[in-house]
Amino acid sequence: MDERLDLFFFYGSTYTYLTVMRVEEAAARAGVGIRWRPFNAREIMLEQDNIPFRDKPVKRRYMWRDVERRAVRHGIPFEGIPTYPVDPDLLANRVGIVAAAEGWCPEYTRETYRAWFLEDRPPGEPESLAAVLRSLGKDPDDVISRAQSQETRERFASETEAARNMGIFGSPTFVAGGEIFWGDDRLDDALQWHGAVSR
Amino acid sequence: MDERLDLFFFYGSTYTYLTVMRVEEAAARAGVGIRWRPFNAREIMLEQDNIPFRDKPVKRRYMWRDVERRAVRHGIPFEGIPTYPVDPDLLANRVGIVAAAEGWCPEYTRETYRAWFLEDRPPGEPESLAAVLRSLGKDPDDVISRAQSQETRERFASETEAARNMGIFGSPTFVAGGEIFWGDDRLDDALQWHGAVSR
Repeated sequence: MDERLDLFFFYGSTYTYLTVMRVEEAAARAGVGIRWRPFNAREIMLEQDNIPFRDKPVKRRYMWRDVERRAVRHGIPFEGIPTYPVDPDLLANRVGIVAAAEGWCPEYTRETYRAWFLEDRPPGEPESLAAVLRSLGKDPDDVISRAQSQETRERFASETEAARNMGIFGSPTFVAGGEIFWGDDRLDDALQWHGAVSR
Repeated sequence: MDERLDLFFFYGSTYTYLTVMRVEEAAARAGVGIRWRPFNAREIMLEQDNIPFRDKPVKRRYMWRDVERRAVRHGIPFEGIPTYPVDPDLLANRVGIVAAAEGWCPEYTRETYRAWFLEDRPPGEPESLAAVLRSLGKDPDDVISRAQSQETRERFASETEAARNMGIFGSPTFVAGGEIFWGDDRLDDALQWHGAVSR
């Protein structure tokens, strides 16, 4: 059995920024590893008619202010509201699937979110994606070609199906001992639950 | 200036149970008073097409499990999923307006939520409401008659308008120093913010 905490997430979720920037350190303090699992939260949310921010300006405004305050609380930089929504073609997400398979998902994800939130270079935008990949020593053409492959698409779909089967409906979601914990603000709960069930 | 923390809430919100059962103690520890302000969250949510649980079985199932886990975390009793939704005619809410005006809102609200969550006697249901009022030493007929008055309806509408003007879109919401904090899980953030701005 994999003893790590599963992190299901979507490149394009705003609150996921907070998790990406703090999850490895929080998990390390708890003595737990993280399994990074990109999935298509957008597809599941559309299926469920769960549209939290589109055409909801009041809730959306609050969301950005909340993200900003939570970033300050956790000592994470915040440089203003970036472009949103992002990754319309899911390319940043498919690259995440490649990165997860090859073991460089944490650094790819951090760099992707850093570029998005701190430099307003949106995930999936070709130039930004290439720059992120080069900064990690990867060949953009090679990685993007593999990201667009049938194999990667199928892997993304099967990860999404795994999330769906667990009752996951948003990003980020942590999975510990068969329980799902939705939202960056449930990270501590998930780590405690994981500690209790693996004892 | 009122130095209390404003608590905007709706009788019928599920997560509000957690707040009702713990807010006075948490606020007392922080040396802060609470101003209980019932408002029509349902009306605002419908206006904004913000329908989190109706026709959303996956998210709704998660919500109940999350409420249960959070109750355990805070040492609050949880006796299974009660009837939901409740208070279709807003009567429990209008009684809340009367109670707030007369200074017995905290005990009325706790007793209403206790009956709902621990005995499955839904807010607004006539027998349950009468029993709650009698347990507080109130005359049900008298209170309900005042709750249905034009004055109470106007007060409920004006509190809802106040919430709307602050950008409030859900229950519970805490207001501290002009900032809104939505959700029981933001209570600590709100108390800290209140402490920082009132220094």
